[in-house]
Amino acid sequence: MKRAVLFLVLAGGSTLLAASCTTAEPDRREILAVLAAQAEAWNRGDLDEFLTGYWRSEQTVFAGGDKVHRGFQAMAERYRTAYPTREKMGRLTFSNLAFEQLEGDRAVVTGSWELEVAGAEKRPGGVFTLLWRRFGDGWKIVHDHTSSRP
Amino acid sequence: MKRAVLFLVLAGGSTLLAASCTTAEPDRREILAVLAAQAEAWNRGDLDEFLTGYWRSEQTVFAGGDKVHRGFQAMAERYRTAYPTREKMGRLTFSNLAFEQLEGDRAVVTGSWELEVAGAEKRPGGVFTLLWRRFGDGWKIVHDHTSSRP
Repeated sequence: MKRAVLFLVLAGGSTLLAASCTTAEPDRREILAVLAAQAEAWNRGDLDEFLTGYWRSEQTVFAGGDKVHRGFQAMAERYRTAYPTREKMGRLTFSNLAFEQLEGDRAVVTGSWELEVAGAEKRPGGVFTLLWRRFGDGWKIVHDHTSSRP
Repeated sequence: MKRAVLFLVLAGGSTLLAASCTTAEPDRREILAVLAAQAEAWNRGDLDEFLTGYWRSEQTVFAGGDKVHRGFQAMAERYRTAYPTREKMGRLTFSNLAFEQLEGDRAVVTGSWELEVAGAEKRPGGVFTLLWRRFGDGWKIVHDHTSSRP
C-alpha cells in the first residue's frame, strides 16, 4: 500500500500500473516459496513449521465443508487433532497454483491439493483459495478456504 | 484505493484508520443488499438476475470441490446445467454472514448457504468465501469459493 501510494503521488496512474506488474513477480515468488516450504514441512511431519505459513492471529480464517473457523490457535488444534501422527499426515502435494496480486500487500492464490496416505482407500484432494497479506516478517495466509472433492 | 490515498496524504495514518472504520458500514450494507437480492432472485427462479451479483469477466473465479473455474460465462453455464428448472433451484438461504473490508474497493464475506429442494433426500449446504470488488456499477463478487458439507 505504501509503495502504491508513493507511485501515485510521484508518477501518476499509468506508472503505477507498470510498477504493479513488475513488482508482483518477487511477491509471487515469495508466496510460492512459502507454499513450497509448507509442503516440505508437512512431508517431514513438521506441523509446527507448516503452520508458520499462516498469520498467527485471532482473525485468521479457515473455511471448508460447512464450517468457518476463526483464530490461528483453533486452526492449529484442528490440524493436530486431524493429523496426530506422521502416518496420518501422509504426503501432501500442491499443484495448479495461480497467483493474483490485489493491492501491494494483498494477494490471492488458488490451487489444488492432494494427500497420499499409505493404506487409505481414497486419496483426499480438492482445491483452495488462499488470501495472503504481507507483514513485516513476510507474506502470510490470512484466510484459507479449502474444499474437498465430493 | 483513491480515497485511502487521499486520507494518507491529507491527514496521516491514524485518520486513515478511523476513516476506514466509518466508511466500511455503507459498503457492508451495500454488499449484504447484493446478497439478499441474489437470494431473492434465486428463490423466484431468476438465475440471470442472481448472476448479476458476479463480475461479468473472464477473470471471475468460481472454486469448489476439486475444481477452480475461471470466467463468468463458464460459471453461468455451470449454474444453468446444475439448476435447469425452478424445482431444482429450490429455496436458497444465506446465514452467518461476516464482512471484512480489505482496502477501499475490496472486501471479503464468509457465510453459510443452504438449499431446500422439495423431495430431495439430503439438504445441500456449506460455507462460502466471497471476494468482492467495487466497480462503477457497485460491488460485485470477483471470486467465489463455495464448499459443501461432507
